[in-house]
Amino acid sequence: MATIEAQSVTDVARRARAAGRRLAAVDTATKDAALRAIADALVARAPEILEANARDLEAGQAAGLPSALMDRLALDERRLAGIASAVEDVIALRDPVGETIEGYRLPNGLDVQRQRIPLGVVAVVYEARPNVTIDAAALAIKSGNAIVLRGSSSALRSNAVLAEVAATAAESAGLPADSIGFVGGGGREELAELATQDRYIDLIVPRGGEGLKAALKGVATVPVIFAAAGIGHVYVDASADLDQAVEIVRNAKVDRPSACNAAETLLVHRAIAAEALPRIAAALGRDGVELRADEASRPLVEGQGAVVVDARPEDWDTEHLALILGVRIVDDVHAAIDHIETHGSGHSDAIVARDHLAIRAFERGVGSAAVYVNASTRFTDGGEFGMGAEIGISTQKLHARGPIGLRELTTYRYLVHGDGHVR
Amino acid sequence: MATIEAQSVTDVARRARAAGRRLAAVDTATKDAALRAIADALVARAPEILEANARDLEAGQAAGLPSALMDRLALDERRLAGIASAVEDVIALRDPVGETIEGYRLPNGLDVQRQRIPLGVVAVVYEARPNVTIDAAALAIKSGNAIVLRGSSSALRSNAVLAEVAATAAESAGLPADSIGFVGGGGREELAELATQDRYIDLIVPRGGEGLKAALKGVATVPVIFAAAGIGHVYVDASADLDQAVEIVRNAKVDRPSACNAAETLLVHRAIAAEALPRIAAALGRDGVELRADEASRPLVEGQGAVVVDARPEDWDTEHLALILGVRIVDDVHAAIDHIETHGSGHSDAIVARDHLAIRAFERGVGSAAVYVNASTRFTDGGEFGMGAEIGISTQKLHARGPIGLRELTTYRYLVHGDGHVR
Repeated sequence: MATIEAQSVTDVARRARAAGRRLAAVDTATKDAALRAIADALVARAPEILEANARDLEAGQAAGLPSALMDRLALDERRLAGIASAVEDVIALRDPVGETIEGYRLPNGLDVQRQRIPLGVVAVVYEARPNVTIDAAALAIKSGNAIVLRGSSSALRSNAVLAEVAATAAESAGLPADSIGFVGGGGREELAELATQDRYIDLIVPRGGEGLKAALKGVATVPVIFAAAGIGHVYVDASADLDQAVEIVRNAKVDRPSACNAAETLLVHRAIAAEALPRIAAALGRDGVELRADEASRPLVEGQGAVVVDARPEDWDTEHLALILGVRIVDDVHAAIDHIETHGSGHSDAIVARDHLAIRAFERGVGSAAVYVNASTRFTDGGEFGMGAEIGISTQKLHARGPIGLRELTTYRYLVHGDGHVR
Repeated sequence: MATIEAQSVTDVARRARAAGRRLAAVDTATKDAALRAIADALVARAPEILEANARDLEAGQAAGLPSALMDRLALDERRLAGIASAVEDVIALRDPVGETIEGYRLPNGLDVQRQRIPLGVVAVVYEARPNVTIDAAALAIKSGNAIVLRGSSSALRSNAVLAEVAATAAESAGLPADSIGFVGGGGREELAELATQDRYIDLIVPRGGEGLKAALKGVATVPVIFAAAGIGHVYVDASADLDQAVEIVRNAKVDRPSACNAAETLLVHRAIAAEALPRIAAALGRDGVELRADEASRPLVEGQGAVVVDARPEDWDTEHLALILGVRIVDDVHAAIDHIETHGSGHSDAIVARDHLAIRAFERGVGSAAVYVNASTRFTDGGEFGMGAEIGISTQKLHARGPIGLRELTTYRYLVHGDGHVR
């Protein structure tokens, strides 16, 4: 640990680059053995980890950290076991490295393969939850990448010990030294130094709030995958099955309001509004959802048990992350698409409909990372999509969209076999 | 044209965003009709285009532009026909939009498709050659993207007319207005303004020298696909077929020395050097190649007809773009890999060998965008790879590597069909 803290950001990045080159050629069995060693070490070295975490919690208490943040920071035996179990889940995932994405023979006889290879070095910059230290390291290792971790200062002691435990276990199991690097404690200058190591780092994945993203956007020369806020929509078409509509709206809003794939706005076709909105409002009222209704919808949602207030213009552009739902009546699917294109964040949007033409129009008109037909927006998740663990969800268009799992931490190269071919 | 020039960069970008949204849903037949109209207009309006080009050439002459640049700038009937023909080639390519990249059913019955959609708005920033105006616009349209073009000031008049001809033809054939936007004449501030339109532009592809890339790197908030210099290598293993080695080295160096996929350095296994190097030197000498040889190889390449000088350390890191080739003797394939990893640019590197173990080691150890076994590096090209036209070649790892064709100008989204599924 002392040696880890003594290194400069550039040192850590340069060593990670060298480790990444070797790690790219390590076979799956060795990588899985390293993951197994990390899972075991988390249990075996729990006392050290919990001791460091206790010191972070003390400092947080002294600094008056909000209780929600304190809870995210806190580790115990059960949570450590959960983190170890998540590492075991990564062992079970298929190694993406070496996959031939496509292969074909050219007219001149050259055989071309597009083959998946690791990115090299991934940096993950995250806030609070110490489990990210291990989750991110496990995904990086399995995909053949070295990783540089930078957590928040409030979890510095916990993260440093977790990174050291993982790095030691991985190296003892045969991975290159420096495959897992850690920096921390250096404030925004340190973040800027990390974000400009484009010579050594191939990708930065930030996991945190808008402040962290803004800090990176201003300075990063390393490519960053930004996850925009999730302003999700459910559009209930005139042709919707109403039972499905009620269930989908309810699930999208209340299942986990703090998730980025939760819905923030309900759009309802004018022709079905009088029938649909009272039922939806009653269901949401039972779950304590506050409705922010436009003028047309307000009379239809009032008196059903839900708190109703007037929607303000800014509500359509807000990720509430709470039991608050905007409600708006629209003339048709095209008006719904316009609303989503204007106010959405390109994360997860749903249509509830039976009319195939309306569904086709919605599919064509909405370009979000995940578009749902008669299903809740809550499914946008690496685990739900069958990709296994994820390191975040991308709403940008370059490289990776939607859940960022093992495959999204790779790139590809063309491998071309000839028999003395010249041009 | 007056209206195009009167718009600010932000205006052009915003209008392109609106056009891109509509263009994403335009069917292939309409896009192809627009491309056909552009090809026809290039011929029909040749006098205007050549008149504008003549004024650029006069200005270039007055400014003392080097003759190589003047040649790249010049258009005539034949070159215009070539540009039109390249547009017709794009018509023949398959539309990538709507492709289901993969599709599967989840255990809960949800059907998930990963489907290809356009990026939205692509900006291409380029130097000299006016044909890029049309080539880039054609690729953008076919892939369902709006485009913002910014050429160099030396070709401003030619590019502006070409962009206007294309925009008018495309719109008359049914594409959304503003699908093809053009900015120019505003210097580096204009470039910076373009590079920070991340609200409206999804990707910038620069086609130009290191100065252009450096100017973008410092300011861009829009993602940029950088094409690094091509410092390609040919490694001749001890097991190589010597006839193939001579032909491949010769082709990689002399076929088109100004291309980024040309070789800059020859690495030869020590065990075969005495036999291979004199033959290679003789072949290269006939083509006028200057050899920059390390100490060990120098006696083996001298006296064969090629000019031989001592290699300086910086030669290994230089893209000569000329008939100059570095020559170095290495101990084995691993030393060759080390050299390539240290000095290469990750573009195109080749091994000539029969020994399967050496080949496997090279494939594993070299992570370049294109890795060749017994073939010339010169094949790294969208046309050669069967992808059709290309807008550039990427050596970076995010999003696209190797030739950037139609597919690389798209992103994907998850389309999820359910029957009222909730989580």
